[in-house]
Amino acid sequence: MKLYGYWRSSASYRVRTALNLKGLSYEYEPVHLVKDGGQQHSEAYRKLNPARLVPTFIDGDVKLNQSLAIIEYLEECYPQNPLLPSAPADKARVRALAYDLACELQPVTNLRVLQYLTGELNCSDKQRSEWIANWVEKSFTAFEQRLTEYAGDYCYGNSVTLADICLIPQVYNAQRFNLDLSSYPTLMAVHERLQALDAVQQARPENQADAQ
Amino acid sequence: MKLYGYWRSSASYRVRTALNLKGLSYEYEPVHLVKDGGQQHSEAYRKLNPARLVPTFIDGDVKLNQSLAIIEYLEECYPQNPLLPSAPADKARVRALAYDLACELQPVTNLRVLQYLTGELNCSDKQRSEWIANWVEKSFTAFEQRLTEYAGDYCYGNSVTLADICLIPQVYNAQRFNLDLSSYPTLMAVHERLQALDAVQQARPENQADAQ
Repeated sequence: MKLYGYWRSSASYRVRTALNLKGLSYEYEPVHLVKDGGQQHSEAYRKLNPARLVPTFIDGDVKLNQSLAIIEYLEECYPQNPLLPSAPADKARVRALAYDLACELQPVTNLRVLQYLTGELNCSDKQRSEWIANWVEKSFTAFEQRLTEYAGDYCYGNSVTLADICLIPQVYNAQRFNLDLSSYPTLMAVHERLQALDAVQQARPENQADAQ
Repeated sequence: MKLYGYWRSSASYRVRTALNLKGLSYEYEPVHLVKDGGQQHSEAYRKLNPARLVPTFIDGDVKLNQSLAIIEYLEECYPQNPLLPSAPADKARVRALAYDLACELQPVTNLRVLQYLTGELNCSDKQRSEWIANWVEKSFTAFEQRLTEYAGDYCYGNSVTLADICLIPQVYNAQRFNLDLSSYPTLMAVHERLQALDAVQQARPENQADAQ
């Protein structure tokens, strides 16, 4: 198995966490999203992934993009340490928690969107920071409310799921942007328990070969 | 079954299409995203969905948010007219196509993001239009390339899948914003075949009770 990723990419971070939680070993191929104007725009990488985004994942002759599709594939082909509950309603709630972050928060705060804000729209640093803070606050406020209903040790009960995998990079980013997260005590308690896991630690951006 | 939605919401549109394709009847409860400052912010709706987004779906005592989680739930509980292929790699590719749109394009062009651009960031109409055109072009260019590899009558082979369900509202929005879509011939041919289906027609925004 081979993962093309970038140390700070939230989507790469999710796939690394899932692979580690399932105890699957893989080769890691860094794609630097900033250096050389962004290596994801190179002809070689575009052949692999025309969306010019990371990650791309290879398992034998199967080539996949989109972190959540990759993780669902891993879940199906490598069922050890399941990342989704088995009952349909529970599974749907876990997926909904994951999408609350992966379809609402991550897309509006990712690198290329922030680059458009400061580039094409000429936003100031203050406007960029307020943009990030606005979407984090909206998402985390709703997520905290859902966790008061669903959480045990982790986002959904007492097993690590896809929801936790999506939460980790969002907290990493929020902390990187120095946001005050004290209004989300359940979310932060779950995050702290997740950080105690070896599989999670080893997936952290600063523990990757391409970390700067 | 009951669906809280809004006629023009892409995510509501996806769920309506999936329900129709599976031949499932449901009650439709409109939540007007603009009127009264946005009915999704009402106390009653926030109790149902703290993220203040549509859709919310009810099936007996199961309450779900996030369109893709709802559709995966329908797929599992009501397997007629499957919306995902059965082989893991095919399934993953269909999900990846769906997420290419649902995690990259829809989130950056939805109502609340456009409201932030013209409100907080004081963007002009021209800047707002360029923003939309930029993300549609990036996403559709990559999507067109993937379809040349995957498409048959529909996005992935000859059955309607989750990928098609996500494509339909994005073309609807792009056409609403008067974008030139002639650079995406495969995508548009698939879209035309989809529009010939009754289930798809009946899910169209203008055919909903709350259409204006």
